[in-house]
Amino acid sequence: MSIKIGLLGFGTVASGIPFLLKENGEKVLAASRDQLEIAKVLVKDDEEKNRLIAAGNDYNFVTNVDEILNDEEIQIVVELMGRIEPARTFITKALEAGKNVVSANKDLIATHGKELISLAQDKGVAFYYEAAVAGGIPILRTLANSLTSDKVTRILGVLNGTSNFMMTKMVDEGWSYEDALKTAQELGYAESDPTNDVEGIDAAYKAVILSQFGFGATIDFDDVTHKGITNISTDDVAVAQELGYVIKLVGDVREVESGISAEVSPTFLPKNHPLASVNDVMNAVFVESIGIGESMYYGPGAGQKPTATSVLADIIRIARRLSDGNVGKPFNEFRRDLPLANPADVKSNYYFALDTPDEKGKILHLSEIFNSEDISFEQVLQQKANGTTARIVVITHAMSKTQLKAVTEKLEAAEDFTVVNTLKVLSN
Amino acid sequence: MSIKIGLLGFGTVASGIPFLLKENGEKVLAASRDQLEIAKVLVKDDEEKNRLIAAGNDYNFVTNVDEILNDEEIQIVVELMGRIEPARTFITKALEAGKNVVSANKDLIATHGKELISLAQDKGVAFYYEAAVAGGIPILRTLANSLTSDKVTRILGVLNGTSNFMMTKMVDEGWSYEDALKTAQELGYAESDPTNDVEGIDAAYKAVILSQFGFGATIDFDDVTHKGITNISTDDVAVAQELGYVIKLVGDVREVESGISAEVSPTFLPKNHPLASVNDVMNAVFVESIGIGESMYYGPGAGQKPTATSVLADIIRIARRLSDGNVGKPFNEFRRDLPLANPADVKSNYYFALDTPDEKGKILHLSEIFNSEDISFEQVLQQKANGTTARIVVITHAMSKTQLKAVTEKLEAAEDFTVVNTLKVLSN
Repeated sequence: MSIKIGLLGFGTVASGIPFLLKENGEKVLAASRDQLEIAKVLVKDDEEKNRLIAAGNDYNFVTNVDEILNDEEIQIVVELMGRIEPARTFITKALEAGKNVVSANKDLIATHGKELISLAQDKGVAFYYEAAVAGGIPILRTLANSLTSDKVTRILGVLNGTSNFMMTKMVDEGWSYEDALKTAQELGYAESDPTNDVEGIDAAYKAVILSQFGFGATIDFDDVTHKGITNISTDDVAVAQELGYVIKLVGDVREVESGISAEVSPTFLPKNHPLASVNDVMNAVFVESIGIGESMYYGPGAGQKPTATSVLADIIRIARRLSDGNVGKPFNEFRRDLPLANPADVKSNYYFALDTPDEKGKILHLSEIFNSEDISFEQVLQQKANGTTARIVVITHAMSKTQLKAVTEKLEAAEDFTVVNTLKVLSN
Repeated sequence: MSIKIGLLGFGTVASGIPFLLKENGEKVLAASRDQLEIAKVLVKDDEEKNRLIAAGNDYNFVTNVDEILNDEEIQIVVELMGRIEPARTFITKALEAGKNVVSANKDLIATHGKELISLAQDKGVAFYYEAAVAGGIPILRTLANSLTSDKVTRILGVLNGTSNFMMTKMVDEGWSYEDALKTAQELGYAESDPTNDVEGIDAAYKAVILSQFGFGATIDFDDVTHKGITNISTDDVAVAQELGYVIKLVGDVREVESGISAEVSPTFLPKNHPLASVNDVMNAVFVESIGIGESMYYGPGAGQKPTATSVLADIIRIARRLSDGNVGKPFNEFRRDLPLANPADVKSNYYFALDTPDEKGKILHLSEIFNSEDISFEQVLQQKANGTTARIVVITHAMSKTQLKAVTEKLEAAEDFTVVNTLKVLSN
């Protein structure tokens, strides 16, 4: 008997699934035990349906989701439409109809995952979404299945391929942000509206999901502070290089004494850190834990085949559990009450780039301001004094977010300093 | 009710398990569902027992394995003794007694795994060994659970921490092999007899196991050709650097048209390859596949806590399956008939370092020899001509193992060339 699947959407990722079923059919069948059959595919309208058929796609295309939801033979619904609606409604209805669901929709899972996970539990069906974080990297199942014995203390991730491509060009080739964005758009890595990628929103969605699997925490998207790469200048990149760092957009989820902290921000990474050599559109998740210590999981963060591979791994897992009779287990069973961390408890080193009049005594004044908030310097560089303006660059020792806020306010109030940029620094 | 565990051996790794149970008890209990209890610990003799008790270890130490094998309450036996005997006999008896077994013993699994796996199957019990390959890196479970949907075409791995530490010192600091070995021994990374590490034997054990999980193949240890790092000179390292490579000991398992090929050898890795920045005692497994494309799994290859974390993950998985009533599933279900590859089908680029009299016409003669075997040069460097002897370095285009053998024989027969070294080159 075959296991019948209904696909919602037939875009790039969905069309990667038939490729794997064809090229890897023997292994997939051995693993899933029953033949997997794409029984119906939902498309938008007759126009799309006719176009796909004309292009040689031999599927049972339907334009009304009810044809899938009411089909009792379909046991697995795979949502690959993206965005919030109508995906949210369709998944909800599929779960309510007792169907197992696979999705790659990080936006939806990060913002409405809680209710969908809970509904799946109530209905005793599976709701899996390995592809939602870091595309082809099997990080969620690894956290859920292998790191069960370990206590994760921090997850650092290069989680957005588009911004990582851009930062790689800015770091390795000295390109400006604007040039990097233009090329990313030309290559199809960035959309015409690149906001989600370059502002760290996409990475923040993934940080929400990683905090569930790594820490058992249920945090909201709004609990993840995010800062993008839009104001990284060639000056920032050059000074980072000079000091032995590369700048990347990094998701950072960690547990401190008071609770959990999650943020996405451009970060100075020491050149010898494993994340520092994750380049172009590749992603990586770096895990710090009390048992393993440091481990990293590296691979493509997006793309047709990598994402389809993760989706198909979820489908196979459901098929196996259907035959074992235990399909209702949650994707992630690790859950605990973990409050949001107190900002006074979340400490990092920071980089400050400041402009100041090219006059005597400015570094003294700057030292007084930082000292008044109990922050000490690790490195200070004075650059580009031109008789009028000087650029001062500071790398601080570890300071809390509370200290960061306080010192930033003082610097902004000080008439002789302009804060050009402030970035987190991962210490060596 | 608790799940009772019998430990065979209480060395470094074993004593890491209580650490995790203490520091991560809540998560472990939630995952395993039942409390895990170390009921008995086998030690060698009364002397060791008394020493451990005197050191404050509060376990039920026994000196006769039958006390564990005949204890019907013990459901899981964890073998952490290492070497072949008596581990092989004890595991066999434990499986025969219907106990689930966890082991970290790569030597044993690579050489006698087949019979133990088959016995576990017959008895309907689990036999897991995540820690046997790359210590803390959860690579086996990832291959078995997540890469089910993908077809692996090649696995490249930095699989031996000791030799990687040595190669890192030789590459980054220009140390000689002898100095690197001496320091590795002083730091406790290398044993007084370092053969297994430096000759690639340890890595070859791991390659056997990776070929099972990645390719479904059952190959023998003797099917893995292995070559160590003992004859890598500072000259080899320097010329690699000059040409944009680093040398590491790399396990290489790949499927070619005629079958599977597995070998361990010092390998020129392009500097921008993700494996090239895996340094010191760290391990990494780089997977090429038709779906994900390229992915890498990085972490500590050995050490008390990392290895104990993998062992405990296996124990938790067994505990869960005991409560689900499906404990008898094999660790790796992927199996198929895959012959050993025909050497004519296994192609790589190669580096040759040759000494020749410092006379005219030698590169011409060398070209004739390679050309006669249909091998072309990618790069040729003449170095260190001193009026008497010249060193010629060649990087070839891809050639088969058959061609390698033939050309090496011709070079050795030629009176004017001495083959100083031949190493595999991973092409860019």
